[in-house]
Amino acid sequence: MSASVHALRTAGREPSIEPLMQLVAPALNSVNEIILARMQSDVSVIPALAGHLISGGGKRLRPMLTLASARLLDYEGTRHHKLSAAVEFIHTATLLHDDVVDGSEQRRGKKAANLIWGNQATVLVGDFLFSRAFELMVEDGSLKVLKILSGASAVIAQGEVDQLQTQRRIDTTEERYLQVITAKTAVLFAAACQIAGVVSERGEEVEAKLESFGRNLGIAFQLVDDAIDYAGNEAEMGKDAGDDFREGKLTLPVILAYKRGDAAAKRFWERAIGSGDGSDDDLAEAIAHMRAADAISDTLERARHYGRLAIDAIADFPAGKAKDALTETVAFAVARGY
Amino acid sequence: MSASVHALRTAGREPSIEPLMQLVAPALNSVNEIILARMQSDVSVIPALAGHLISGGGKRLRPMLTLASARLLDYEGTRHHKLSAAVEFIHTATLLHDDVVDGSEQRRGKKAANLIWGNQATVLVGDFLFSRAFELMVEDGSLKVLKILSGASAVIAQGEVDQLQTQRRIDTTEERYLQVITAKTAVLFAAACQIAGVVSERGEEVEAKLESFGRNLGIAFQLVDDAIDYAGNEAEMGKDAGDDFREGKLTLPVILAYKRGDAAAKRFWERAIGSGDGSDDDLAEAIAHMRAADAISDTLERARHYGRLAIDAIADFPAGKAKDALTETVAFAVARGY
Repeated sequence: MSASVHALRTAGREPSIEPLMQLVAPALNSVNEIILARMQSDVSVIPALAGHLISGGGKRLRPMLTLASARLLDYEGTRHHKLSAAVEFIHTATLLHDDVVDGSEQRRGKKAANLIWGNQATVLVGDFLFSRAFELMVEDGSLKVLKILSGASAVIAQGEVDQLQTQRRIDTTEERYLQVITAKTAVLFAAACQIAGVVSERGEEVEAKLESFGRNLGIAFQLVDDAIDYAGNEAEMGKDAGDDFREGKLTLPVILAYKRGDAAAKRFWERAIGSGDGSDDDLAEAIAHMRAADAISDTLERARHYGRLAIDAIADFPAGKAKDALTETVAFAVARGY
Repeated sequence: MSASVHALRTAGREPSIEPLMQLVAPALNSVNEIILARMQSDVSVIPALAGHLISGGGKRLRPMLTLASARLLDYEGTRHHKLSAAVEFIHTATLLHDDVVDGSEQRRGKKAANLIWGNQATVLVGDFLFSRAFELMVEDGSLKVLKILSGASAVIAQGEVDQLQTQRRIDTTEERYLQVITAKTAVLFAAACQIAGVVSERGEEVEAKLESFGRNLGIAFQLVDDAIDYAGNEAEMGKDAGDDFREGKLTLPVILAYKRGDAAAKRFWERAIGSGDGSDDDLAEAIAHMRAADAISDTLERARHYGRLAIDAIADFPAGKAKDALTETVAFAVARGY
């Protein structure tokens, strides 16, 4: 049994994000200070609205990945602190715009910002944070980091538009779905890790390994999120379970259940996704079809596959706390689905 | 009579944007090619939606200002072509987000993008164009240009949020209004001109003059826009006349009419702006109050003031076609209101 398969299990306890949090705690304080300072504005609704999301329950997963990747490379500077804050701002901007786009009612267990401040301010504060992210990068002064993150931002927006296009399209393929989640989620995970390689000046090969780690972790993370939307409960998710179904989002559990279903199941999916109102009855039937087709468990199996790829991507970095923490973060990400 | 006052008149004919267009025509073709190439995406709705606005009737005023400013400095390179495209992308992104924010029904004389493709895709394509703008700047590689335009983008977003805050607030002051229009409009005009100074490497003093020219022109431009919304007709505007009134926007014509009005007029404004439904009857009464208070004509007089400041800002550049074209552009901008 290979080390990477083994690494997805932890002996005698649940995998946890704690080792990652402990590894980066002091640096994360410095990142949080930058985040709080840079979301300020004379226009008072901006820090209020941004703070609702940024201060409220965010795990800071992406900045932590930058910080831990820098530790993996024994980087001793602090340039990555500002850049971690920039990554979190880009992520927060996309969440704010997503809330407007999705019409979601909850985010991170709280009322979505657009329901409190309206769609208008929510769009604009997203724009503000996005601009602030670029200001932070410009202050750092690395054109390579700017290239990675401006490119990632363009890909994220394309992925989100692409996801809109697949909405209620039951004929969406697993390949198209993977393209969408790579663009909308995994590319920012990848960039967060890669930029640690850039500031550490360890060369393109090291950057490519970190990029691969982040990208595969991001795909695994989104696959599990998409499974949990049909298997989890609200408290775990911090957003409404069944949201994807009600919005007609074509996620892998739906794609697998449709592809594997009999004629009656196919008719159900065509109606429920194509023109359904996302009723609770339909959701219950959807979950029953998914269970019959092993669609949720196989989505989680796909997530484990990408988790293994992530762990293999950093296989030849030296052993130590940073590698252990990143490895357990992958295990944690895929274990959320159980 | 000073040259700058004189310059706001043209002998024997209407001031026109033609000299500016002729001055920059060959360079603008190259900018248009960059714009068309960079708004492409595999996700087909992106070029369709972006092209609706970008190809449809846009005057390219901001890129033309970059091109003409470069001519004023006898810059002979082509770096500013990509940067002009970046400026137009930033402008287009803010227009797309504005349409979602304002719920406007027309833009540049066409149906607003959000009414055709929905708010969701419109927000996301704005994000895409914004990211593309930064990619173009990163390719150029000037951290100073990146700093100017990321800073401008943050200020624009703040100005838009600030404008939302003043909406339906009849106690908004002229000073606050000037801050809002400087942020939401003039700062991008200023940046468009200043970056020509940066690529020309003519030093901070020259940059500051161009920044001042653009900023004052931008303020004049927005003042006239805000006057036309109460004085013009739909064909001229390319957006609905009376839109600002219906949205309860606190523009200078309203601020002056309220401040100068008698008790009855003040009561009208407090109701019509604070809680009115923007009916045609109310709009007619609003315009009558404005005429009685010279609010529209004095808004245009304020525009002429800023127009003079713009012309003075470039007073000590050498005479020639570029200076003439920029000067007549100011005259054209303020003359739109007559």
